[in-house]
Amino acid sequence: MSRTLAQVGEFGLIDRIHEIIRVEGVKLPKNTVGIGDDCAAFQPRPGYDLLVTCDCMVENRHYLPRFITPLDLGRRAMVLNISDVGAMGGRPRYALVSLGLRSSTLLEDVMAIYRGFLAELNPFQAFIIGGNVTQSTDANFIDITLIGEVETGRMVRRSTAEPGDVILVTGYPGQSAAGLEILLQTEAGESWDRNPLINAYQYPAHRAFEGRAIAGTGLAHAMIDTSDGLLGDLGHICDESAVGAVLYEKDLPVSEALRQFAETSGRGTLDYVLKESDDYELMVTCTPDHVAGICDAIADTSDVPVTRIGTVTGNKGRIEIIDAAGDSRSVAVSGWDHFSQ
Amino acid sequence: MSRTLAQVGEFGLIDRIHEIIRVEGVKLPKNTVGIGDDCAAFQPRPGYDLLVTCDCMVENRHYLPRFITPLDLGRRAMVLNISDVGAMGGRPRYALVSLGLRSSTLLEDVMAIYRGFLAELNPFQAFIIGGNVTQSTDANFIDITLIGEVETGRMVRRSTAEPGDVILVTGYPGQSAAGLEILLQTEAGESWDRNPLINAYQYPAHRAFEGRAIAGTGLAHAMIDTSDGLLGDLGHICDESAVGAVLYEKDLPVSEALRQFAETSGRGTLDYVLKESDDYELMVTCTPDHVAGICDAIADTSDVPVTRIGTVTGNKGRIEIIDAAGDSRSVAVSGWDHFSQ
Repeated sequence: MSRTLAQVGEFGLIDRIHEIIRVEGVKLPKNTVGIGDDCAAFQPRPGYDLLVTCDCMVENRHYLPRFITPLDLGRRAMVLNISDVGAMGGRPRYALVSLGLRSSTLLEDVMAIYRGFLAELNPFQAFIIGGNVTQSTDANFIDITLIGEVETGRMVRRSTAEPGDVILVTGYPGQSAAGLEILLQTEAGESWDRNPLINAYQYPAHRAFEGRAIAGTGLAHAMIDTSDGLLGDLGHICDESAVGAVLYEKDLPVSEALRQFAETSGRGTLDYVLKESDDYELMVTCTPDHVAGICDAIADTSDVPVTRIGTVTGNKGRIEIIDAAGDSRSVAVSGWDHFSQ
Repeated sequence: MSRTLAQVGEFGLIDRIHEIIRVEGVKLPKNTVGIGDDCAAFQPRPGYDLLVTCDCMVENRHYLPRFITPLDLGRRAMVLNISDVGAMGGRPRYALVSLGLRSSTLLEDVMAIYRGFLAELNPFQAFIIGGNVTQSTDANFIDITLIGEVETGRMVRRSTAEPGDVILVTGYPGQSAAGLEILLQTEAGESWDRNPLINAYQYPAHRAFEGRAIAGTGLAHAMIDTSDGLLGDLGHICDESAVGAVLYEKDLPVSEALRQFAETSGRGTLDYVLKESDDYELMVTCTPDHVAGICDAIADTSDVPVTRIGTVTGNKGRIEIIDAAGDSRSVAVSGWDHFSQ
């Protein structure tokens, strides 16, 4: 019978967190200070820049507990952050985890969340070196700060796309949004395990190994993850790089599962592919003659498909879509706005 | 008329945050990436270890909005974190701020919170380089990750106290707890500005400059801030250093204001000084012949009083208090438990 946090207390919880990290995580090197002091501490490696990102998930806002196990919740929260580090070409090294938890939360659920974190960090030999736990009165939340490293000079930013660049994207953006839509229409208790769209929502993957491989080529001009939706993030590239973009509708990657689902859902396929969706794919720009080099580097790392979806233009701030008939239309950049929805 | 976050939207809010940091914060060096990419990035300085801490403040749990202005809330949230970096001997350099905010929050209040952050960071030439904002459904929260640096070899930990060490403490721990007690008994609208105990609660100060000065001497064995209460943090030193401690009741620093208040409050003075209280003083241990060196280093930095309150012993895990009559009693370590209260 699992106990609640009110029963084990803060220091009991911290002891258990300490233990799970020690037993199931990667061993801390000698010159690193982990949990148990006023700060964590480490020695940065010469020749590397440090990357830092933080992302927060609030219950009922970014996830619905009835659709996700604590283990998968921990994985998802860490994947968001790993994706950000990967999108700059970096390797995750150190995580700090801040949890806001109701007193009625079960200790075993918190342990499962930590197992989820470690499942994502261990492949990078990355450690949880700090954090804090606090009582929340209403919604639980998970706020992670992830520190990564990238060889000095190898970082790929979103502000350095150039007119004439090809735009590439990995995987099938939009599947996750479709998966969530299916889940929301599902009756409680219904089984949903075999649907690839639902899987895309339930088990999001980062592309950090691919991101590192891309940065390693030195050929990418700009890179970003699609966490604000393909169009939202293309908008970020255009804003920060002071460029525009043209997308070719016929070239956008649409999985067979999404194509079939969109026929019945009442929303067009493009709506899923372009708008907000919890996929963490990479969007990359490079000159046309470097496309092959970047695709080869990705293929050496994983079998994720890479699709050429458009071109960077000098039309600052303007994104156009060319449809199958060859007609062009401007589109408004659409991303996830946390306060208007 | 100030607008709400629902009215300005997430991207409107982020633009304003970006602007206030650019205009009112310290200028980012060229090789540093601030807000506006997947990650922030910086080049660590050779010869320094990095320190990282994160601390979270939840509305109605760690602060009561009716007693604190948004500006002071921002200052307080940053002070907690600066205190942790200072307690390891470090200098704050980079902050990431994660905010959970209701849609009804006023934009001008968020700006005031950021002004509070900057008021505390600017004296260290430290920057806000990243973060995120998310909608909270119930209580607002502020989660800060602060990265500091300390010269390699100069870090002071809590795990390195030695039997025979003298225990020193800065300032007057416990004043803040008394101040909060007064506030909670105050009628709405009553003026409370001139009470030093209330000031201690309302405007907590860190001792990070003093902490750096102490670390700079190379004379301190162990150091910690008193954020879990004097006794709670002495307990942390004892646990991590595998030592015990004796405190002398007559030597504990009690301000005149606290002494007067305790006479009427029904709780003893010791209760305030030893137990949880939002003071961020430093507790330091060193050999008896190094007390003067440490006190001199502090005096060169500020006029905060330093008091010798006890001795580290070999009685692992045992903390004793010697009262005015010379009688000894063991005390249970008491700190702030977030889930049991």
